[in-house]
Amino acid sequence: MIDNLESDKVAEATARLLRERGVDKKEIGELVLFLQKDYFPKLTMEECIESVERVLSKREVQNAILTGIQLDLLAEQGKLLSPLQEIVFRDEGLYGCDEVLSLAIVNVYGSIGYTNFGYIDKLKPGILKRLNEKNGKDVHTFLDDIVGALAAAASSRIAHRKQAEKEETDDSDNSQ
Amino acid sequence: MIDNLESDKVAEATARLLRERGVDKKEIGELVLFLQKDYFPKLTMEECIESVERVLSKREVQNAILTGIQLDLLAEQGKLLSPLQEIVFRDEGLYGCDEVLSLAIVNVYGSIGYTNFGYIDKLKPGILKRLNEKNGKDVHTFLDDIVGALAAAASSRIAHRKQAEKEETDDSDNSQ
Amino acid sequence: MIDNLESDKVAEATARLLRERGVDKKEIGELVLFLQKDYFPKLTMEECIESVERVLSKREVQNAILTGIQLDLLAEQGKLLSPLQEIVFRDEGLYGCDEVLSLAIVNVYGSIGYTNFGYIDKLKPGILKRLNEKNGKDVHTFLDDIVGALAAAASSRIAHRKQAEKEETDDSDNSQ
Amino acid sequence: MIDNLESDKVAEATARLLRERGVDKKEIGELVLFLQKDYFPKLTMEECIESVERVLSKREVQNAILTGIQLDLLAEQGKLLSPLQEIVFRDEGLYGCDEVLSLAIVNVYGSIGYTNFGYIDKLKPGILKRLNEKNGKDVHTFLDDIVGALAAAASSRIAHRKQAEKEETDDSDNSQ
Repeated sequence: MIDNLESDKVAEATARLLRERGVDKKEIGELVLFLQKDYFPKLTMEECIESVERVLSKREVQNAILTGIQLDLLAEQGKLLSPLQEIVFRDEGLYGCDEVLSLAIVNVYGSIGYTNFGYIDKLKPGILKRLNEKNGKDVHTFLDDIVGALAAAASSRIAHRKQAEKEETDDSDNSQ
Repeated sequence: MIDNLESDKVAEATARLLRERGVDKKEIGELVLFLQKDYFPKLTMEECIESVERVLSKREVQNAILTGIQLDLLAEQGKLLSPLQEIVFRDEGLYGCDEVLSLAIVNVYGSIGYTNFGYIDKLKPGILKRLNEKNGKDVHTFLDDIVGALAAAASSRIAHRKQAEKEETDDSDNSQ
Repeated sequence: MIDNLESDKVAEATARLLRERGVDKKEIGELVLFLQKDYFPKLTMEECIESVERVLSKREVQNAILTGIQLDLLAEQGKLLSPLQEIVFRDEGLYGCDEVLSLAIVNVYGSIGYTNFGYIDKLKPGILKRLNEKNGKDVHTFLDDIVGALAAAASSRIAHRKQAEKEETDDSDNSQ
Repeated sequence: MIDNLESDKVAEATARLLRERGVDKKEIGELVLFLQKDYFPKLTMEECIESVERVLSKREVQNAILTGIQLDLLAEQGKLLSPLQEIVFRDEGLYGCDEVLSLAIVNVYGSIGYTNFGYIDKLKPGILKRLNEKNGKDVHTFLDDIVGALAAAASSRIAHRKQAEKEETDDSDNSQ
């Protein structure tokens, strides 16, 4: 039996589920680079992946991932009650609980991420395109929004950090 | 097989699930009366229940109810993956997806409902007390927040309507 | 002196302010058509504008518009306290209160609008491009997000209505 | 002229404005203690104040505070456009932009804070009672929600930290 909370187990389960659902941190990092490269031309892939890892370390984020992937899995197995089963299986247009859960991820690094979330959710670059291909078997109704939200939150984090770095450099210039 | 969307079936499933989980519209109406009676002393129970019914007629609200109750049911049956199973079963303190889904219900009638939602979610009057009693069997991790959110949204709707009524009366006074 | 609330005055002030800031309902309608034409090929400009008008009739929406435009105006006149003055005047990247207020508009028609909001906020088609052109004088830090949110909310409303229309037609087909 | 962003100036302006508006960090700490003492009986006032300080160090939080207090100040001086002037001056019941801005503060430490925010916003213990007393002169329409949100966010932060501390202790026990 699991002890009360146990952060390690929650974090490990999140990482394992993402992997099992075919999501690689590197691919989320690519979304971050896609979103931020125009603003920070020197941004490296390593920084993007590190930012994704920091987002993934938050309990709020882990909770949303575990919950969303669970619903995708159950819909795949046909185990949700009708009509929720059909709604999630088909990623129905009037269903917004996937967006709602994902916004909780975006919020962790502030409101400047809303725009990036909506943008890649619609444009579907990289991994998001693959997650959205319907083959009548795999269900990624929640996962595609979650991945977009992770990239948006990691981008917000970078925007905040880059400003801090810039100010530190300016300070050392001033002190000369 | 269910046809695309079919609003009737979604609405019926929502009403049935609430009933099966022991939630009576009258009890939600009592929460609304509790929240609003100081502001509108003449408010009747009938108006409160009608307002709850109007909230329940929204697709956004139905989606959140179907999803939340589904997760409660699966946790009761021990069918969620660990550690989400333990998290939802115990209504763990650091898990906020229930609040997130419920806020989507509150939002439908505007931001003035946030306060009422938080207030009764903490105070737990009436039906909310019953839903929160842990007996080691029933799981209402999502349902108690959903019921509180329904009452908060119905209260916001009443606040908006009462103002409209007041202005109509004032207008007819002015026109004399 | 204004009487308590007075919905008419709030609605009129909102319409007047939008007009004075150069926002035409027709241009918001064009954004709606841009967002929805792929899903509903027969959608007319008249339907889009009518949907915008319905969104604009909500008090929650009017409150956000009045507040956002007020902050833009004060920043234009240099009347905000430093550093908020500089932050709003320059539409600073780490400032997200404009997105926060706009999301309250989107929420009124449910969470399916988040994606559309983020998408056009980033892509900046039509009127959004004009509102974003910095000339060192006009400030539209809040207004551009507000206009995007109005279009996103009106689009969500259309998605909900079109489904209802479709079901009514299906019903009459079935009854033959 | 202010340089781009300058985090120090934003942080200092936030602290100064709170002080000028009569808000003492100690009083926010008291709200935190009020909210959390039943869950963590050994929680000290020092920990509560430190948590408030950490919340106040976030740019997202500072932005919301600067914006909200600015609107309160302008309403006090009668400098907002009608009808927004009357709406903010009277803290009108159907106006929810104050709650919207405050929720952005709560969000920074996750969704578990929504309930605490609503609860103290309605109950108005300690400083919140004073901020809500209408004397026909001072306007705290935004500030009272902001202070409640700061206390709610600081409480969420404590809930997350206490869990981490508990797990560390458990780990060292296990390693013996």
